[in-house]
Amino acid sequence: MEVKIGLLGCGTVGSGVIELVQKRQDMISRLTGLQPKITHVLVRDPQKPRQVSFIDEQLTTNADDILEDSEIRMVIETIGGIEPARSYILRALQAGKHVITANKDLIAEHGTEILETAEHAGVDVYYEAAVGGAIPLIRPLKESLTANEITDLKGIINGTTNYILSKMTETGADFADVLKEAQELGYAESNPASDVDGLDAGRKLAILASIAFHAKVTLDDVEVTGIRTITAADVAYAHELGAVIKLVAEGTDRDGNLTLQVRPTLVVKDHPLAHVSDAFNALYVRGDAAGDLMFFGRGAGSLPTASAIVGDMIEVLRNLRMDTALRVRQLLLPHKRVRRGQGEPARYYVRLAVNDQPGVFAQIAAIFGQAEVSMETVLQKRSRQNSAEIVIVTHEVGQEQVTKALNALSAVNDVQTIHNVMPVIGGAQ
Amino acid sequence: MEVKIGLLGCGTVGSGVIELVQKRQDMISRLTGLQPKITHVLVRDPQKPRQVSFIDEQLTTNADDILEDSEIRMVIETIGGIEPARSYILRALQAGKHVITANKDLIAEHGTEILETAEHAGVDVYYEAAVGGAIPLIRPLKESLTANEITDLKGIINGTTNYILSKMTETGADFADVLKEAQELGYAESNPASDVDGLDAGRKLAILASIAFHAKVTLDDVEVTGIRTITAADVAYAHELGAVIKLVAEGTDRDGNLTLQVRPTLVVKDHPLAHVSDAFNALYVRGDAAGDLMFFGRGAGSLPTASAIVGDMIEVLRNLRMDTALRVRQLLLPHKRVRRGQGEPARYYVRLAVNDQPGVFAQIAAIFGQAEVSMETVLQKRSRQNSAEIVIVTHEVGQEQVTKALNALSAVNDVQTIHNVMPVIGGAQ
Repeated sequence: MEVKIGLLGCGTVGSGVIELVQKRQDMISRLTGLQPKITHVLVRDPQKPRQVSFIDEQLTTNADDILEDSEIRMVIETIGGIEPARSYILRALQAGKHVITANKDLIAEHGTEILETAEHAGVDVYYEAAVGGAIPLIRPLKESLTANEITDLKGIINGTTNYILSKMTETGADFADVLKEAQELGYAESNPASDVDGLDAGRKLAILASIAFHAKVTLDDVEVTGIRTITAADVAYAHELGAVIKLVAEGTDRDGNLTLQVRPTLVVKDHPLAHVSDAFNALYVRGDAAGDLMFFGRGAGSLPTASAIVGDMIEVLRNLRMDTALRVRQLLLPHKRVRRGQGEPARYYVRLAVNDQPGVFAQIAAIFGQAEVSMETVLQKRSRQNSAEIVIVTHEVGQEQVTKALNALSAVNDVQTIHNVMPVIGGAQ
Repeated sequence: MEVKIGLLGCGTVGSGVIELVQKRQDMISRLTGLQPKITHVLVRDPQKPRQVSFIDEQLTTNADDILEDSEIRMVIETIGGIEPARSYILRALQAGKHVITANKDLIAEHGTEILETAEHAGVDVYYEAAVGGAIPLIRPLKESLTANEITDLKGIINGTTNYILSKMTETGADFADVLKEAQELGYAESNPASDVDGLDAGRKLAILASIAFHAKVTLDDVEVTGIRTITAADVAYAHELGAVIKLVAEGTDRDGNLTLQVRPTLVVKDHPLAHVSDAFNALYVRGDAAGDLMFFGRGAGSLPTASAIVGDMIEVLRNLRMDTALRVRQLLLPHKRVRRGQGEPARYYVRLAVNDQPGVFAQIAAIFGQAEVSMETVLQKRSRQNSAEIVIVTHEVGQEQVTKALNALSAVNDVQTIHNVMPVIGGAQ
């Protein structure tokens, strides 16, 4: 039996979906007993040359052709962004169509509305492609690992910043130059804010944390620091300390208290996340029964993203054949609370510029001592014009203590600037 | 609604299942709308002290109490081995009970019989725990990655040999000593053959390959080499070459031609598998759409294995609530063929003992040259009593060529012994 599918959007991801469905037509039929057929593709410009070929009548510029066609059982959304994707998805769900989306912005910001609409309409929403590209993350968390209380998520889940930081590490170049190159190569968008300011990683962490911790979490719950302030100097100091800088997303659940953070982080080279380069993503998951798990793979790209979407499509086809829906519901536990500024104890890297004169370091050391922050490593370099640069790596200490020490430091006259503060993971403890 | 469950076996894994179900009772009910209740536990000796507590009537020594109780909807098998596990599972399936098993030996050797019996009876068999302990592998391969043609599997999937090889690397001790210690610590069984001869890894590879490559594959299809011949000398040479020795399971599908091998392998330290130590498992998967993926976690242990089993239990509960079965069928493609001795091109490590006299190395070099095997690195050490040890690392070469060269070498009078031949992965190419 043929199952009609509408595809919203035909950019990089949408083309990948068409290509993969064509390629796997036979296998999908054997697996599910049903033949998926993408009958309509919503595009802005039907004349635009594309890498995939269509039957003429497939292309449309009118979303109603898909949303109001009662024969279409499934809608795949690859437009991205909030509107009109949100309205289209809500209309599709209300019309009784199953929805598959790769739209992390939408799920992170309007996930509750979308899931509730789907539940009310008795249809499913799948979004494996929204986080981690090809890597199975959503479904393992929602299905395979459900016997666990998940306590920790930690990973690299934004490809653009990982590419930029990898290139900064390889070449020693500064952020702005590498960003420009990444934009020219198409690895970064012309407006890179969402990626380089950590918002994209924050949204993905919100999606993962909602599932893993059984909580309603949005971007607003995530403390986000981007990578714009990371300089070639930080990269060089990290190297001197045996580490690389990565944008790490981290979520913890301690007896219902959630902490959610996206921060540039010094990853010592003995830690597996140090070796996740360029466009790859990786996620650590700790469960109370399973222990530590890691998932690694391509976080973006046409076919990797299509791999996740078509995997979801096969799941919907299975549900259609079995005539079931809403098999896997998201559990929400009411007692979960988000705390801010109370991250797990960690070692911290602090880079400061201070007046280059006697007694300044003693002052700093005294302030750290008063805040009960002990130092593991200190690198001091003369810079220029009466300014010295100090890099401190602390012993393991709570985030609140570090914040206290930094607040005290910034009140000291001889401290010119606190350049960067980053947690350190890995390394002998 | 309560769902009655029978548990066969109450050793390490079975106790973990009881503990985890008790701990997660409330969460499982919220997730599935059903209350799992383990009403009967089959044990050999009801008097034996155990780490979990029972209601008295739960324990039984008679399997019929479970298999013939029509109220029991689900049977969890944690006995291990072929019989009586196989008969019990077949009877449970024929009686219309869903089955969850951690039994890799049984699935690898009798998987087809068990899956066909289940299909005939209209019930499901889940076995996530059979490979990779807590790591979600079976379900991602059967469900999330189904849009891919999987071309490569490569991993460390036996904890005992990984523990032994890790300890040999750390301590420089020989195989026999480390095995003895591992047996005393309970990391290796008193009869270690299944692990150290590579059969356990071979069975797990057969299970993974059956799913990933859509083929009927059993242990007989896997070329297996164990780790008994690995000596402290090999470990030391590997170290000199910047590598560690791991037991690597590898399966490839090249246009329907499958190659399945379990072999001790030199893993250069820049390769992620080099850092998978002790009881951890890791599996690389390459799909034509997804690209490279890696899954990592605890390969065994009471709660990690229970994590996978109770994850499967929740899946069965979902199916019971939706009144569906056989949602996910295993696809078998008829054109798949297993080839032997035709592994992918690789660099090879060869360690030989030869007569310590002029001209011998020239002879060896000539034989390698005739077989078109070129050498990348040669280490030659004088041993004792007219015997010299030669270690050769070849450039990348097909397995058939290496075999040809080795056959020619073994016919040379001055070659005393070919100690070990291992592929090399990782390292600059």
